[in-house]
Amino acid sequence: MVKVTLKPDERIDQLYSQDIQIIQSPEVFAFSLDAVLLADFAKLPLRASSQTVDLCAGNGAVGLFMSHKTHGHIAEVEIQPRLADMARRSIALNQLDDQMTVYEGDLAQVNQWIPKDSADVVTCNPPYFADLPDSQKNPNRYLAIARHEILTNLATIVATTSGLLKMNGKAYFVHRPDRLFQLLQLMAANRLAPKRIRLVHPKPGKEANMVLVEAIKDGKPGGVRFPAPLTVYDAQGHYTPEVEALLYGHH
Amino acid sequence: MVKVTLKPDERIDQLYSQDIQIIQSPEVFAFSLDAVLLADFAKLPLRASSQTVDLCAGNGAVGLFMSHKTHGHIAEVEIQPRLADMARRSIALNQLDDQMTVYEGDLAQVNQWIPKDSADVVTCNPPYFADLPDSQKNPNRYLAIARHEILTNLATIVATTSGLLKMNGKAYFVHRPDRLFQLLQLMAANRLAPKRIRLVHPKPGKEANMVLVEAIKDGKPGGVRFPAPLTVYDAQGHYTPEVEALLYGHH
Repeated sequence: MVKVTLKPDERIDQLYSQDIQIIQSPEVFAFSLDAVLLADFAKLPLRASSQTVDLCAGNGAVGLFMSHKTHGHIAEVEIQPRLADMARRSIALNQLDDQMTVYEGDLAQVNQWIPKDSADVVTCNPPYFADLPDSQKNPNRYLAIARHEILTNLATIVATTSGLLKMNGKAYFVHRPDRLFQLLQLMAANRLAPKRIRLVHPKPGKEANMVLVEAIKDGKPGGVRFPAPLTVYDAQGHYTPEVEALLYGHH
Repeated sequence: MVKVTLKPDERIDQLYSQDIQIIQSPEVFAFSLDAVLLADFAKLPLRASSQTVDLCAGNGAVGLFMSHKTHGHIAEVEIQPRLADMARRSIALNQLDDQMTVYEGDLAQVNQWIPKDSADVVTCNPPYFADLPDSQKNPNRYLAIARHEILTNLATIVATTSGLLKMNGKAYFVHRPDRLFQLLQLMAANRLAPKRIRLVHPKPGKEANMVLVEAIKDGKPGGVRFPAPLTVYDAQGHYTPEVEALLYGHH
């Protein structure tokens, strides 16, 4: 058992389905279902020479949850020092230091660490809200940066993603449906062709509140597929079997 | 009871949910679920002064199925004389001559009949396939024209739709998911902002094979909503209650 030091507001949570432990703080950052779904949606090459990059990594949840999918390296890029520190300690906690590296800084400068055209996969669970938060709503600077486009924006994220990817490399994004059209337009302007779009509905009969997008760099345009949507809760308010399995594993 | 003359290959089918009778021919044109779903998805202004235009009208199914939604006028534009003739006779059969008019000709010349910037709503169930059919697959010219972009194409349809619409008028399309991205790009180039996108899945767990799109002319970009998807058949192969109601009404 690896020992890590927790700060007073931190706790260790577990993604039971994968036996991953992750340092969280309700005051700073805690992963949500979005991270679990993005990690599940992404397809990673198994080979040890592969390079996967997670942008806007937060406390490292997406990278940690993808680590069982590849023997390759996973880089986590996070601009907030406190979150990057949580990610590093979670990597140590799971003994994944050989596989994962945290780069602390602005994703727009990612090529200081990872060369252009070198990544097989780039994932990103970006800040969802284009508008700057008013200070009333978000007195918490950590959460404001994670949720709002304060230190980065979707255009920079998509351009950076495309720059990192090899030809035919794959990008995976999770976002709000009301930003999907903008995301698709930015992808088109950055050599990323959408291939698979999965909508996530909170309950049966409710409109989608999340969307997962797979794109290929320099892929042929057209041919987008929409797999069956994911519904999070059933009509009784219990997790659907698919989400239950993602969170707790198959029993 | 109105009497109409049927050609040898024709029969009269009924959309029971609406008590609409429609002249069909398996050799020439028969409406499919797509037309029923498009007519259901479209929102029409009730007022008698409103103008709705259905492009690529075929045998008039979409217009006929929308007729109960408005007191306004519905124009049907169809290039194939035989299909336009079927639409005219179906309109007579349903005693809707006061409400509906069939214009026979190329939709690119629609402004000879309907002025630019005058329509409240434009609907279209276009030919789905961009590729020209090889003659082996489609010896039937009627069906080939209805299914393949032989006499029109999506770019012309979207430009014509936008030209017909008033500011804030609404467009409704049904198409294949693999053309959705192209449709969205053409819409963006023609002042049509997507507002609502509904995916149609053939069965639970299967990827979407149809998509319904609502757009507003000169609407604000962003804010697309994805309502709960429609699933056509349940796991046992029976129509789901929603589709059953659209076809046969509520019992």
